[in-house]
Amino acid sequence: MPPGQPGRGVAGDVRQTRGVRTIHVIGIGAGDPEQLTLQAVGALRSTDVFFVLDKGEAKADLVRLRREMLETHVPEGTYRIVEARDPERDRSAGGAAYSPAVGDWRSARAGIYERLIAEELGEDESGAFLVWGDPALYDSTLGILEEILERGSVTFAYDVVPGISSVSSLVARHRTGLNRVARPVQITTGRRLAEGFPEDADDVVVMLDAHQAFRRYADQDIDIYWGAYLGTPDEILASGPIAEAAPRIERLRAEARERKGWIMDTYLLRRNPGDR
Amino acid sequence: MPPGQPGRGVAGDVRQTRGVRTIHVIGIGAGDPEQLTLQAVGALRSTDVFFVLDKGEAKADLVRLRREMLETHVPEGTYRIVEARDPERDRSAGGAAYSPAVGDWRSARAGIYERLIAEELGEDESGAFLVWGDPALYDSTLGILEEILERGSVTFAYDVVPGISSVSSLVARHRTGLNRVARPVQITTGRRLAEGFPEDADDVVVMLDAHQAFRRYADQDIDIYWGAYLGTPDEILASGPIAEAAPRIERLRAEARERKGWIMDTYLLRRNPGDR
Repeated sequence: MPPGQPGRGVAGDVRQTRGVRTIHVIGIGAGDPEQLTLQAVGALRSTDVFFVLDKGEAKADLVRLRREMLETHVPEGTYRIVEARDPERDRSAGGAAYSPAVGDWRSARAGIYERLIAEELGEDESGAFLVWGDPALYDSTLGILEEILERGSVTFAYDVVPGISSVSSLVARHRTGLNRVARPVQITTGRRLAEGFPEDADDVVVMLDAHQAFRRYADQDIDIYWGAYLGTPDEILASGPIAEAAPRIERLRAEARERKGWIMDTYLLRRNPGDR
Repeated sequence: MPPGQPGRGVAGDVRQTRGVRTIHVIGIGAGDPEQLTLQAVGALRSTDVFFVLDKGEAKADLVRLRREMLETHVPEGTYRIVEARDPERDRSAGGAAYSPAVGDWRSARAGIYERLIAEELGEDESGAFLVWGDPALYDSTLGILEEILERGSVTFAYDVVPGISSVSSLVARHRTGLNRVARPVQITTGRRLAEGFPEDADDVVVMLDAHQAFRRYADQDIDIYWGAYLGTPDEILASGPIAEAAPRIERLRAEARERKGWIMDTYLLRRNPGDR
């Protein structure tokens, strides 16, 4: 990087922090390895240790995809992979208990990350966490790193490489925009959508929806744009007026989940503003 | 691309439409040329004709950045650049008149794009529009292409390559998330923020704000994360409690605008949920 270009990339940030452990939080796109940015490839190549959290059998596909990315872009023998077991998340806690359960899980994960950084990363080395999609959207890594720094037992510098989110990927595949002209878009969770449609946004992207909350709105004038396993060979897309598309998506989703053992999906609901 | 991988990339889509004009709408990131994805680089290399709309003196920097991207990634002599003058947008129309004014402008632009595609693109060739950020977010290209197809005088196939948006870029540089745990985020315009803070989102990203609507909220318990010219050598970042940061951002913004002649900025407002 030429001098006089502060903050243009990961390399610059690293150089400023020589002598201190460095962590890259790298967004690696929604599933298509071609969604890696040049900046992300550069960050992969400047990493000594990759931390991979194993989320159990169901996500083995995703761990494999990450390994393939490294094999494609980083010369063999220039990096180490350190694996750890992810803490179990208490998904039985419902309703108001959701956030505290997430908090417990996050602290457990912070403990694991803290140990990995302290024990596996040399003082002049750089480590990386590879995050699906964009680290800014419904991902816990940044919050966990801040929690570790607050605890104060290990110190490190970190930077963030933005990635193509499943949200961007979804609408690109459907060749539609997230927002309509001069209008807002809200990104929310299935849990929140189940409680009600947002007040002041007619375009709503829903993530983390294990219960297909869109079914509640099947009698409204809404179009749905749905996608699963976006950017991977298993990608499935479906769209249409929700009354017609919802049962079709339910069926596609159940079949895919049965076949693969897990599913990652997201969708955009586009409400006709006249129907409020 | 191996067979049996439908929809994984631009190349696949192109192959299916041989004999028909093809258009790539390519997200090229928020300003840092390293934010190009590998998929975007592939799409650039498979393009015969790049359409560049000249937005006047103020945006000459951005036209230059795009040319540099092409020079870096695409072999010389394998492509043509076709330039056209963007229609003037009537920015004097305020309030309720905003959308019709945008509609007129969009139709004028559709006429220009239609002519470019019909006259400059051979029947087996592929053209591309390079879109800053992500084509899905506050960009008119997809809507314009649909309008041209509806007019029916030229036909073409098109696909979309998602890009790193200024929104992702902003929060990556500030090393924060877009949403808080299990909570929603709304992306909206300065015009809408000036009318009121969204009802059901405490994390709000604001784009297209020429009037610094955040100043209206300077007495509230809100943190602001602001950035201008993200990812470029001119990048400026500022953040903090809005009461303290708002005057600082106003000053930085005015100075930068004076110096450069134009500004592109965006920001995240993060409201303390207790303050409603």
